[in-house]
Amino acid sequence: MHYNFSEMIDRRHTNSVKWDVAANELPMWVADMDFRTAPGIVDAIKRKADTGIFGYEEVPQAYFDAVQHWYATEHDWTPDTDWMRFVTGVVPAISSAVRRVSHVGDNVLVQAPVYNIFYNSIVNNGRHVLSSDLRYHDGQYSIDWADLEAKLAEPLTTMMILCNPHNPVGKIWTSAELTRIGELAAANHVVVFADEIHGDITETGYGYTPFASASSVNAANSITAVSPSKTFNVAALHAATLIIPNENLRNIVDRGINTDELAEPNAFAIDGSIAAYTTGAEWVHELNAQITANKQALTQVIQQRLPQLHVITGHATYLVWIDCTAVTSDTTALCTFIRQKTGLFITAGSVFGGDGHDFVRINVACPAERLQDGLNRLVAGVEDFQQSH
Amino acid sequence: MHYNFSEMIDRRHTNSVKWDVAANELPMWVADMDFRTAPGIVDAIKRKADTGIFGYEEVPQAYFDAVQHWYATEHDWTPDTDWMRFVTGVVPAISSAVRRVSHVGDNVLVQAPVYNIFYNSIVNNGRHVLSSDLRYHDGQYSIDWADLEAKLAEPLTTMMILCNPHNPVGKIWTSAELTRIGELAAANHVVVFADEIHGDITETGYGYTPFASASSVNAANSITAVSPSKTFNVAALHAATLIIPNENLRNIVDRGINTDELAEPNAFAIDGSIAAYTTGAEWVHELNAQITANKQALTQVIQQRLPQLHVITGHATYLVWIDCTAVTSDTTALCTFIRQKTGLFITAGSVFGGDGHDFVRINVACPAERLQDGLNRLVAGVEDFQQSH
Ligand SMILES: Cc1ncc(COP(=O)(O)O)c(C=O)c1O
Ligand SMILES: Cc1ncc(COP(=O)(O)O)c(C=O)c1O
Repeated sequence: MHYNFSEMIDRRHTNSVKWDVAANELPMWVADMDFRTAPGIVDAIKRKADTGIFGYEEVPQAYFDAVQHWYATEHDWTPDTDWMRFVTGVVPAISSAVRRVSHVGDNVLVQAPVYNIFYNSIVNNGRHVLSSDLRYHDGQYSIDWADLEAKLAEPLTTMMILCNPHNPVGKIWTSAELTRIGELAAANHVVVFADEIHGDITETGYGYTPFASASSVNAANSITAVSPSKTFNVAALHAATLIIPNENLRNIVDRGINTDELAEPNAFAIDGSIAAYTTGAEWVHELNAQITANKQALTQVIQQRLPQLHVITGHATYLVWIDCTAVTSDTTALCTFIRQKTGLFITAGSVFGGDGHDFVRINVACPAERLQDGLNRLVAGVEDFQQSH
Repeated sequence: MHYNFSEMIDRRHTNSVKWDVAANELPMWVADMDFRTAPGIVDAIKRKADTGIFGYEEVPQAYFDAVQHWYATEHDWTPDTDWMRFVTGVVPAISSAVRRVSHVGDNVLVQAPVYNIFYNSIVNNGRHVLSSDLRYHDGQYSIDWADLEAKLAEPLTTMMILCNPHNPVGKIWTSAELTRIGELAAANHVVVFADEIHGDITETGYGYTPFASASSVNAANSITAVSPSKTFNVAALHAATLIIPNENLRNIVDRGINTDELAEPNAFAIDGSIAAYTTGAEWVHELNAQITANKQALTQVIQQRLPQLHVITGHATYLVWIDCTAVTSDTTALCTFIRQKTGLFITAGSVFGGDGHDFVRINVACPAERLQDGLNRLVAGVEDFQQSH
């Protein structure tokens, strides 16, 4: 490999949310990686820092060209640059879109178990969460189409937040699934917000399909959010892009992101993103190889040493979703126990809703050496939990 | 001087909003300076860039300590660090507070002519602007106390946005004025939002008084916003601080900034701000000397070459407010004419409301050489305008 994904970087005392833990603790929770970002991004930020002037910034065409280039070369989709708007983050954009696209009291549809912050964006704005829970069968997740259709058809359902690929289950939706979701949504006048922040992180040999690329119906009725933040480990770059092919919908959302002050980039967001999208491809491919290897290592350890757990096969994200039904149906208690006993800090699944209370989510985006430490703690923690319960 | 405020930096093609102008044009409009920021800030950003990891950030105690240190040493006020909340900008925080503190349909009081974006924060959120216009008399602005009291007493008036010091008239409110505003507001159950973003930029020999420091009544009933953004020319650092002594009010506003996703810093906001507040004092004092000199130079040119104009004496901000009544009462036409004829781009006063249509605002935060260029264009433009009208 050209890039180094094995350096054990000490992130304590760096104001990192992930690493705000006790000295003996090992955090493998929030979606934030322990890898240094691509060197081209660091260089671009330093060049910008050198200018010494950080006044009000506007978004140049070169930014949109870079986003387009990335989607064309990495994901075989060439969105028009006119469809794009810069925003300071995916979650802020979701909240803003919820306020513009739906009304107070409406239902916003999600598919639990799903990224917990979706619930905040809905509930904090006075809308209701309506979940068409994913169906869990034979260790696999799938869509309950009849349930989805019925819930999209409810008169108060005006928006759907799709997680593509899906956090926490790691699933990459197929083009056929995306087309079907899009048809059902359009037929029921439900606007789809496709959160594709995890789209670049796929196992070697796998790729994701952007929702809007799957069909013209999808394109006409959707807001897609993409960002270098997960891909390049730059959550605090505060840069994301909305892609909205439909002009009318674009204008509605545009008004919201301006009123909500999400449309102005900080001094490093533009140059950092352009560097990511124009110089970062090889870095991401190597990152994906490392994550693929880490997932395999985790799966093997669990098969051999914790066969009572079941790793869900997902081909995207660096988050692994693990079925703990055989151990407990209260993984919050399990995770608290593991943290107390071993210092390993992983995410209890209940925050994601649905059947999450049976699962834990583990972030494997770290050097292999750190992963082994985490896995040893996991094995010890689960065994201890079972002995004492 | 220790720092260099005369370097003629070329800011074209740097994504600068201010410098997005034609080749022959000279921008002296938006509140953004043509000076490189303090070196300590650049160093801090580069050190952070070197770490190469830009994951989710939290705000350390050291940040609040730095803000406190700055206010204690520069402005003789020592706000409790518990009263502080980090936000990504002053304007986003105003909008958020408007939504939390007032209701749809309420009046939010301002004092026109005033920073135009206040109007957006009020109107875009479905509230009404109620202005107690500043009284202009003998070339000076003052508060019409009877009018202010009557408007604060209106049942629908629930919030006041105070600009301290006042953009665009450059006025530093005295402690006595601030106390009186605070008493009237409290007596009428109106919460005061004190935007003190310009507080550090005062002429040599002058200082500003923070609203909340003027009396305990003021402290108990106010939200103060401060930021290194104007002071250090780092608008795109996206860092500001709310100071809210009253616990109840603080919790209300805190809920808003979290829901509105304004509470999370980007990767450079914290280190940049700490460097500003702990290493930047001398830089600011020298900057203020330069701005003082620039204002004197402008005043002199106008007295000598454009005596028909009148420069308003304001001891704060790098924005100069100029009475053009003798030339026109439509400064929008004047500014358009000046820009077309000479390339000088200044702000027509009407956007600030009130009597703004009689005034222009000129940003003098640039090297003396560039200022002279601007003043020559101004003289030529005004003379041409008078000859052709
Ligand atoms: C599905 C999903 N969307 C959005 C985010 C966060 O986006 P941002 O940091 O741009 O607000 C995350 C972070 O984990 C995520 O998993
Ligand atoms: C009075 C006032 N408040 C706020 C701002 C902008 O604040 P921010 O860039 O932090 O949103 C300005 C900029 O000119 C201003 O003059």
